Amino acid sequence: MAESHPQPGDVPSDSTVPKAVVARLSLYLRELQRLEAAGQQTISSAQLGTLLGFSDAQVRKDLGFFGQFGYPGVGYRCDELIRAMRDILGTNHVWPVVMVGVGNLGQALLGYRGFARQNFRIVSAFDCDPTKVGGTINGIPVRHVDQLPDVVRCEQIRLGLIVVPGERAQEVADKLVAAGVEGIVNFAPVTLSLPPHIQLVSVDLAIELEQLSFAVTSKLHAAAVQPGG
Amino acid sequence: MAESHPQPGDVPSDSTVPKAVVARLSLYLRELQRLEAAGQQTISSAQLGTLLGFSDAQVRKDLGFFGQFGYPGVGYRCDELIRAMRDILGTNHVWPVVMVGVGNLGQALLGYRGFARQNFRIVSAFDCDPTKVGGTINGIPVRHVDQLPDVVRCEQIRLGLIVVPGERAQEVADKLVAAGVEGIVNFAPVTLSLPPHIQLVSVDLAIELEQLSFAVTSKLHAAAVQPGG
Repeated sequence: MAESHPQPGDVPSDSTVPKAVVARLSLYLRELQRLEAAGQQTISSAQLGTLLGFSDAQVRKDLGFFGQFGYPGVGYRCDELIRAMRDILGTNHVWPVVMVGVGNLGQALLGYRGFARQNFRIVSAFDCDPTKVGGTINGIPVRHVDQLPDVVRCEQIRLGLIVVPGERAQEVADKLVAAGVEGIVNFAPVTLSLPPHIQLVSVDLAIELEQLSFAVTSKLHAAAVQPGG
Repeated sequence: MAESHPQPGDVPSDSTVPKAVVARLSLYLRELQRLEAAGQQTISSAQLGTLLGFSDAQVRKDLGFFGQFGYPGVGYRCDELIRAMRDILGTNHVWPVVMVGVGNLGQALLGYRGFARQNFRIVSAFDCDPTKVGGTINGIPVRHVDQLPDVVRCEQIRLGLIVVPGERAQEVADKLVAAGVEGIVNFAPVTLSLPPHIQLVSVDLAIELEQLSFAVTSKLHAAAVQPGG
C-alpha cells in the first residue's frame, strides 16, 4: 500500500493501531480533562508523559498514529487535544448503552458518574427479577429482559454491558448480539464466545490488585527489604 | 551495569519492566488458567498470542523479561508457566486486603469471586454507616472506619481498596497510608494525591466502554459502512 500521512481527525482502521495505544489514548484524555478543569491551557509531550509515567517519545509516537497535533514551542493545546482524542475514540457524541443485570454491581454502575463524563448514557437496564422490573434507579428504567430486542432496535443501541452472574452471561450475550448490539463490556467472570464481528472487552476486577501486588513485591525485591520490616 | 541473564523466578525491579508488560502478564495468566482448567497441558507462544491478539514475538519478549520458560519443540507447560506468572506477580501466596466503603459497588466487590481465584482475600470491610457496621457480608466483617489502623497493623495488611464516594476518597487514602498500607486500588472517580512510595492503581469503569467505542467507530471507518445500515 502507498504511504499516506495521517491528518488530524483521520481515524485509522482498528487493525492498524495497537490496542495498547488506544488504551493510552483513554489515559491521555483523562489527564487532559483534569488539567483543563484546573485551568491549564497548553502542555508539552514531556509534561503529559511525566504525569502518566511515559516518555515524551512514547506520547508523540502514540499521537502520531492519528495526525499532527502540537505547535512548535507551545506543545499541545489542551482543548484541541481533548477534542481530537474524543474524535478518535468516537466519544464526541453521546452513546446510548443498555445494561443487563441489576444486582449490586449493576446498581453501582447505574450511579457511576464516570460514564456520563465520557459521553456514555445508560438508557435502560434489564433484569428478570419481578421486584426490580418496572422500577427506575437513578432515573434509569429497569425493564424485563424480554424487552431487550425492542429497546435495542428502537433506540439504535450499539453497546451493551453484561453485569449478570457468570452462569447467565453467555445467554445474555447471545440476546444482545441477536438484538443487534455491536460491542459488549463483560463484567461477568467468564469467557464469552461471540461472533467475530462483535467487539468484546472483558473486565476483571482482580487485575488491578495483581498489578499492585507486582509493584509492591518487585519494589521489595529491588530494595531487598523484608515485608513488615 | 553488567549484563546478566534472568533466571526463572527472578523478579526484576519494578522500574525495569514496562507497566504494559506487567499488564499483559495478568492476561497470559488468565488465559493459561482457562486452558489448564480445560485440560490443555502445553502451549506455544504463537497459540498463546493468537488467543490474546498478540504476536508470538510479543509473547516471547514479554516472558523474556523474567527468564527462560519454554521447551524447544514443546512450547510452555501450562502448569509451570502459571506457577512462574504467580511468582512474578507476587500472587503465589494469599494477600489479605482491606476495603473501605460498603455501598453498592463495595457490596458487589465483597461477592466478587475473581479476587479469591487470584489469591486476594478481603479480610475486613469498613464503613461509617451504623446500619452496616457490626454486620457481615458474604462472611466478611464490616467494621467502623476508626478501627482501620488496628486491623491493618494486626493483620499486616499491605493492600487496600477505596470504594467510597469521590468526595471522601482522599481522606480514606490518607487513613490507609497512615495505617501502613503500601498499595491502593482506587475505584472513586477522583485523582488521589499520595506519597511517592505508595503504589496506586485507579479504576475508571468508563475506559472499557471508550475502547469499545473506538473499536466500533474505527471498524466503521475501515469498512465504510453507515451506522444502522
